[in-house]
Amino acid sequence: MILRLGQIELYVTDLAESEKFYVDTLGFIKVNKTDESLYLKATDEFDIYTLVLTKREEASLASFGLRVSSEEYLDELEKKHHEMGIETEMVESSHPGRGRTLRVAEPSGHPVEFYHAMEQVDVGKGAMGVDKLPMRNTHIFNGIPPVRIDHMNLRVTDVDKAWEYWEAIGFSISEFVQDGDEKFAAWTRAKTSTHDVALVKQDEAALHHIAYIVDGVAGVVRTADLLADAGYRDAVEYGPGRHGVSNAFFLYIRDPDGHRIEIYSGDYNRDTDLPPIGWTKEDYDANGRLWWGPSVPDRFFETTPVNKDWVKPKINN
Amino acid sequence: MILRLGQIELYVTDLAESEKFYVDTLGFIKVNKTDESLYLKATDEFDIYTLVLTKREEASLASFGLRVSSEEYLDELEKKHHEMGIETEMVESSHPGRGRTLRVAEPSGHPVEFYHAMEQVDVGKGAMGVDKLPMRNTHIFNGIPPVRIDHMNLRVTDVDKAWEYWEAIGFSISEFVQDGDEKFAAWTRAKTSTHDVALVKQDEAALHHIAYIVDGVAGVVRTADLLADAGYRDAVEYGPGRHGVSNAFFLYIRDPDGHRIEIYSGDYNRDTDLPPIGWTKEDYDANGRLWWGPSVPDRFFETTPVNKDWVKPKINN
Amino acid sequence: MILRLGQIELYVTDLAESEKFYVDTLGFIKVNKTDESLYLKATDEFDIYTLVLTKREEASLASFGLRVSSEEYLDELEKKHHEMGIETEMVESSHPGRGRTLRVAEPSGHPVEFYHAMEQVDVGKGAMGVDKLPMRNTHIFNGIPPVRIDHMNLRVTDVDKAWEYWEAIGFSISEFVQDGDEKFAAWTRAKTSTHDVALVKQDEAALHHIAYIVDGVAGVVRTADLLADAGYRDAVEYGPGRHGVSNAFFLYIRDPDGHRIEIYSGDYNRDTDLPPIGWTKEDYDANGRLWWGPSVPDRFFETTPVNKDWVKPKINN
Amino acid sequence: MILRLGQIELYVTDLAESEKFYVDTLGFIKVNKTDESLYLKATDEFDIYTLVLTKREEASLASFGLRVSSEEYLDELEKKHHEMGIETEMVESSHPGRGRTLRVAEPSGHPVEFYHAMEQVDVGKGAMGVDKLPMRNTHIFNGIPPVRIDHMNLRVTDVDKAWEYWEAIGFSISEFVQDGDEKFAAWTRAKTSTHDVALVKQDEAALHHIAYIVDGVAGVVRTADLLADAGYRDAVEYGPGRHGVSNAFFLYIRDPDGHRIEIYSGDYNRDTDLPPIGWTKEDYDANGRLWWGPSVPDRFFETTPVNKDWVKPKINN
Repeated sequence: MILRLGQIELYVTDLAESEKFYVDTLGFIKVNKTDESLYLKATDEFDIYTLVLTKREEASLASFGLRVSSEEYLDELEKKHHEMGIETEMVESSHPGRGRTLRVAEPSGHPVEFYHAMEQVDVGKGAMGVDKLPMRNTHIFNGIPPVRIDHMNLRVTDVDKAWEYWEAIGFSISEFVQDGDEKFAAWTRAKTSTHDVALVKQDEAALHHIAYIVDGVAGVVRTADLLADAGYRDAVEYGPGRHGVSNAFFLYIRDPDGHRIEIYSGDYNRDTDLPPIGWTKEDYDANGRLWWGPSVPDRFFETTPVNKDWVKPKINN
Repeated sequence: MILRLGQIELYVTDLAESEKFYVDTLGFIKVNKTDESLYLKATDEFDIYTLVLTKREEASLASFGLRVSSEEYLDELEKKHHEMGIETEMVESSHPGRGRTLRVAEPSGHPVEFYHAMEQVDVGKGAMGVDKLPMRNTHIFNGIPPVRIDHMNLRVTDVDKAWEYWEAIGFSISEFVQDGDEKFAAWTRAKTSTHDVALVKQDEAALHHIAYIVDGVAGVVRTADLLADAGYRDAVEYGPGRHGVSNAFFLYIRDPDGHRIEIYSGDYNRDTDLPPIGWTKEDYDANGRLWWGPSVPDRFFETTPVNKDWVKPKINN
Repeated sequence: MILRLGQIELYVTDLAESEKFYVDTLGFIKVNKTDESLYLKATDEFDIYTLVLTKREEASLASFGLRVSSEEYLDELEKKHHEMGIETEMVESSHPGRGRTLRVAEPSGHPVEFYHAMEQVDVGKGAMGVDKLPMRNTHIFNGIPPVRIDHMNLRVTDVDKAWEYWEAIGFSISEFVQDGDEKFAAWTRAKTSTHDVALVKQDEAALHHIAYIVDGVAGVVRTADLLADAGYRDAVEYGPGRHGVSNAFFLYIRDPDGHRIEIYSGDYNRDTDLPPIGWTKEDYDANGRLWWGPSVPDRFFETTPVNKDWVKPKINN
Repeated sequence: MILRLGQIELYVTDLAESEKFYVDTLGFIKVNKTDESLYLKATDEFDIYTLVLTKREEASLASFGLRVSSEEYLDELEKKHHEMGIETEMVESSHPGRGRTLRVAEPSGHPVEFYHAMEQVDVGKGAMGVDKLPMRNTHIFNGIPPVRIDHMNLRVTDVDKAWEYWEAIGFSISEFVQDGDEKFAAWTRAKTSTHDVALVKQDEAALHHIAYIVDGVAGVVRTADLLADAGYRDAVEYGPGRHGVSNAFFLYIRDPDGHRIEIYSGDYNRDTDLPPIGWTKEDYDANGRLWWGPSVPDRFFETTPVNKDWVKPKINN
């Protein structure tokens, strides 16, 4: 089975600026830095990294990865895609610590990668005996700090089609918005929280935001304080406020390349077998988008493009 | 000496609506209710009440009270006003539990009352022996709840004149905004926090807001949640955000009569003998008003009028 | 698949005392009350209840329930038990809102119930259209309040045998303590957090505690305040402190019948396919039991007996 | 008038160890470091430092300082001491940024210093114009961090005599414990919170602890996490718990020299003219010392000696 969103790679235009923002200010943990990429993680993660920032001429979404429960399931997933008539490519991941990777283009063209093997943080003294869990390093953390990766919000050209795809590969829908005959939005998930991948209708496929969980309401507010104190006040784009859908207490910020990050305190858990909660577009506009909070600024509707150099998978077996 | 802002009386048009908002939703403690008035307190206050809501045809600011350190100082204050040529009236307070009261019109016409005697919460078993402090009743509190009264923000026609008055009766200025030759705003105080009485220039004297302190950032955010959940989403007017001046993390809400309440987590302490911190109007517009936060909605500039029936004091000795 | 711990029933000796403690003080939501039972839920739960307190002569653990993903899986689970030579009983649940239930005795004799059908909180306006999510009623919550059910800690006579059983029905082990040739303790789970069912060695099978998640560190501390303020200071048994295993920031409290409840702010998430984290008994005694905190009081080792009237399942198909 | 406790100097045996503990782990801001001393401040303080750690052979309390409202009041205070028959010494402070200092031995021999002039943090751009307030540097703070100095807890040989002294120089008593004919303890203050100087009976004069306020309940708990994570678990001595007297939510920690620091989230404000709240020793033992919390460990009764090299003041005018 698919377990969760596990990794995001963003293309950025200036690694030094990104490091200043993500590492020095927000407190992402710098795991590794190469000429081309920054490998980052949040405090409570066991994967050795979850966010990769890679230097390119233009800022865009490079790809995102979903971790699956076994190598066998990766093969099964490959077959499942072929049955749906979707091309795939099985490669050795170019990212350190990660194993075999199944590359797929989601119906709107989003670059998805599935993988199982992922190097884990060493908790201790070898085969047996624990030194310490990764989150027990509060004395060296700085910034917010982010606690763990949660989800991505994608803009897709056809939500019904995207829903069909994600459900076909085993995702559950937690909430959705019905707009007449078609879906306006859907929150889909492998885990029990409200989303790993949110889908919202837009004319062009794009990334709206990635999301990291922080420690409660105070962690969210602290983010705005940190940014303003460090001279990044304009990076505080929207919020704090509370969404009706997902019940998220949110703050949206923008990195130096304009990539949007939702900093939030988590949402609710609900069993994945339960039917989705459906909002009419009317309900959604009234209460679903915003339970309370400031009015939405125009720039909140800007998005990150999908990278144009992404080579579409071709069936390789 | 003057100790602090101790009491506010607001005129409201519907006591039942006020009770639903202040008591049932926000968690002000209802100390007493008469045909005409609701007497309310916050959790950590030793005064038996700090907020009085009284039924009238029109909503307005009835008056506000400053507690002084002794009956002798009340007499001294009376003399000091007369020396400044300001009329006063010494009356027995009509409010229960309060003693002799010196009534004064502040330069812009704001209705000020000074008093010393104020009934205190009984902490215990009589002459000796403590049962419990007032804040140790968390099991029966509801709502946010508010922790203690902090300050008022007055609109005055001439800030320089008002500054002169408040300084003459012993207040210290913590921060101010200089706009060319005149002051645009001043934060004045008897206590060591940034203000008991804030003064901001406006064409007409009015009350902008009263302020209560709540428990940290989480208490501020909880206020918006409570209001939205209880069906009062429109009462969430502005925020959360952080002011540059005073460093306050704020949320502004509106009661059913439109009275504005700042719900905030407190500000900093600074000795009252230190010189005020001065902002240029330019600095203030750039960073002082808002360190970070959403843009200000138009209705944030609406104010509560001073009640017209207030009888100006006449020297009575 | 098994999804999570979904329900606990405790026998209590005085329903009125239990209601005062759980509902009036801690803020469990009273969903229903019959002559015999109190049905309670926490704020963020979609199941109509998760805790049942039932009147009996003696306080004990009545049973606990695990929710599975489908009716078909319930049948599969029945077969799996029979293959392991474990007797089962399929019954219609006596609890309202719950469907077919598979009763099983866990290797040490603990009374386990598996079920799929469970009535859900109505979020809205019928077939389509959302009114509000269950947690958006902060204006009527009181107490801590508890956010959601998390786990149980069982004392078992043979941890290795219990481990074998829980793993056989699909649980993952998150952490364990190795004591020479045998296991001293194991934290087992269906969900991605550290445990649904913890197993610790003891001469006699018993319940050590049930656990509910509350809102962060402040929620844990608030619990002790509420209890002391309401006159239940002795109910605050142990903590606050932090466990090494599971990273839990904990407070253990005792209900009027002596049932122990862990009030905590949640632990970490880790994929269920990953190998367990193993502590030596030495490591565990040094850092695993307690990362920091006060020394353990003697009464922390008291436990709740399993009810003697529980009728062992007999294969009924 | 005396404004507040403003400065503490402790003798420590190893400056490097102290820096690692106070600066690197707890997050005190290092303002200056000389061969002999570390000058530290907390985030919200306007004084350029409040804690001085100075290298000596033996750890002890060097002295503590109380800030007064004017140079004139310093002279008045000198006279007041002479009238009470207490010797004083007026010196230029050896500490940077501080002016004329009146040295006095409190009745039990505690080394007290009064001063007015104290260099302040520069908030801005010179004569007019604000850059930023000192607490708006969250992006470079680390550790808890401490927010501001609050009080000291002294052990004195005769509480009644000490009370008499502190009241004579203008302090107010907030709470006290009556033990038969004599006082067991008294909380005395210049500011409106519960204490600047707490006095508790002991056979020998000593320092029990100094106290810094941190940001709420989460700040207190974070302190224990930081210490345990950094390898200082034994430094977490007592708590978290809540005192009845002062309502403080506390954690007591020990620095590398054994000096005890109370890390707490602040207490209540009550006007200084109000009569003290009196506990019988019985009440205090039952509820005053501990509203709730773990039992007191033996080492909590250890104290820091007053330094023996302190030269008693001699009247110098």
